[in-house]
Amino acid sequence: MHPTSTPSNLSLPPMKDLTTENITENVHIVNSQCRDPRLRYLLNRIVSHLHDFCLETRLSTEEWNTGIQFLTEIGQISDDLRHEMILLSDTLGVSSLVDSINHPRQPPATEGTVLGPFHTHDAADMDHGSVLHSDPDATPLFVLASVKDTRGNPISDVKVDVWEGDSKGFYDVQNPNREGPDGRGVLRSDENGEFYFQAIVPVPYPIPMDGPVGKMLKALGRHPNRPGHVHFMLDKPGWDILITALYPRGDPYETSDPVFGVKESLVVDLSTVEDEEMAKKYGVKIGTKLLRHDFVLLTEQEARELRKRNAIEAMEKQGRKVVFHDGLPVPADE
Amino acid sequence: MHPTSTPSNLSLPPMKDLTTENITENVHIVNSQCRDPRLRYLLNRIVSHLHDFCLETRLSTEEWNTGIQFLTEIGQISDDLRHEMILLSDTLGVSSLVDSINHPRQPPATEGTVLGPFHTHDAADMDHGSVLHSDPDATPLFVLASVKDTRGNPISDVKVDVWEGDSKGFYDVQNPNREGPDGRGVLRSDENGEFYFQAIVPVPYPIPMDGPVGKMLKALGRHPNRPGHVHFMLDKPGWDILITALYPRGDPYETSDPVFGVKESLVVDLSTVEDEEMAKKYGVKIGTKLLRHDFVLLTEQEARELRKRNAIEAMEKQGRKVVFHDGLPVPADE
Repeated sequence: MHPTSTPSNLSLPPMKDLTTENITENVHIVNSQCRDPRLRYLLNRIVSHLHDFCLETRLSTEEWNTGIQFLTEIGQISDDLRHEMILLSDTLGVSSLVDSINHPRQPPATEGTVLGPFHTHDAADMDHGSVLHSDPDATPLFVLASVKDTRGNPISDVKVDVWEGDSKGFYDVQNPNREGPDGRGVLRSDENGEFYFQAIVPVPYPIPMDGPVGKMLKALGRHPNRPGHVHFMLDKPGWDILITALYPRGDPYETSDPVFGVKESLVVDLSTVEDEEMAKKYGVKIGTKLLRHDFVLLTEQEARELRKRNAIEAMEKQGRKVVFHDGLPVPADE
Repeated sequence: MHPTSTPSNLSLPPMKDLTTENITENVHIVNSQCRDPRLRYLLNRIVSHLHDFCLETRLSTEEWNTGIQFLTEIGQISDDLRHEMILLSDTLGVSSLVDSINHPRQPPATEGTVLGPFHTHDAADMDHGSVLHSDPDATPLFVLASVKDTRGNPISDVKVDVWEGDSKGFYDVQNPNREGPDGRGVLRSDENGEFYFQAIVPVPYPIPMDGPVGKMLKALGRHPNRPGHVHFMLDKPGWDILITALYPRGDPYETSDPVFGVKESLVVDLSTVEDEEMAKKYGVKIGTKLLRHDFVLLTEQEARELRKRNAIEAMEKQGRKVVFHDGLPVPADE
């Protein structure tokens, strides 16, 4: 025989005779050997939900096989550039939910949304007023924005990472001949918390449909088109990082985003640069499309307290008292 | 723009402003476009369970990332010979549960268990009394078995596929120099429902620990060793296929099988061939280890009725009335 360990763990309560009714409890017994209370709790919930899913649906062997194959193919099509498992998480609303759990916001703080697969780390620093895109076919959009705290005080020196697709709905990384970043840049908010640049009016674009997730969406009768948006990531030490996007109102896919990124507070009305003084001050033409927005950040401390309060509430909903392990909740009664 | 479909589905109820509290309902709204009622029900339950898991645990972004990476690696290590996603399902008790849902048994029918990854389709037909293994180091085990219906009538001409590892705990397919099947064969039950062959006393062996699932088991403090067993697959048109295994009593891993395959009714007591007449009849030596077992099959009809009854019960537990779609349950109220 070639067992790789001695049966040293057999002091745990032995499994009982396995039946459809008690197998869940038996898996919990075996996993209760885990010494990390957070991992133990995660596994307990994963196993309960997986088993309840099978029991509620009476999952057939054929369906189980299809699911195993589907998940395996998602891994197999993935590489450093393609993240199909993230796309699955996105299209099931999990990414959006995890973001909102980890970056809870209460008014007036700006809501976050999904990062998406198109953020890169090679965007160049750019000056205020710079042109983000080289696309000659796009409709220019002047973005004039500010960053404030929840009391309305400006926050200076916030690193603002912005990125968006071109007038055809493609990001630069989707261009096989990409030579460098286009449609992306990094600014810093000034002493008034302001930053501004020349973007383009964003257009809708489809998420990749040539893999297993695309097959799933087709089977579900869902379309792949994200409403047009401009991505923003606002970061400064001491402040809760804000990953978000702004969606110009009126997009045909505004109410059916396949990755559940749209939130009402992130849908914005575009206007037009009409004021001579503004045009002169920022070096833009009268008549240019205008997006004005004030971002509001929470401090790390504010975000941490909100997360903690939400975690306690969620645990109480399950009828459990909570303790925190490395800042994350575990039931006190285990 | 390059959206791949027109917004023809936008007659569906628009999503409401997404929050942590309502995103689950919003994902359900989008998936409600699915025309297949069974797939619609499966997705509804998958999404609810995934979201509840995130909400109950307040899943951190880092943990989410770890999970995405873990599942991706499972696909990437898998190929035609290695089925890591099945191993994950096995080690979380899902495979065992799905088997018991799909092949429900009530006494006196023999219980099923996990197929495992070592079944092949190249086993040769063999005569009763044949020797299964060429392993010279193994302890011989004479298996004398029968197949009956629930009333005790013998069932003849059942295809009996048997397979087991060698005295070191390795299956033939784990030998990189494998030239053909060893430790496996296919018999047919005779007119008395009997079949018999010479196997070896099975020994424990570890499941593969060199992949992501192995890492998970280590993190959970779980050992990888399956208690020794002999696999049986009994199949005949009109009868519910029985995939099972028998586990000689007293194995050190009997109560902590990493894939949750052991059931009390499948743990068997070995005896010894002591009867001269038996030794002569079957051509085995006095003193040979003996495994006697009577397998009891359900008809397909009996299994179908049991599955249906269990499905109705499970749906009623959720407070739902059930209708059947291609033999599988969906809620009547959707």
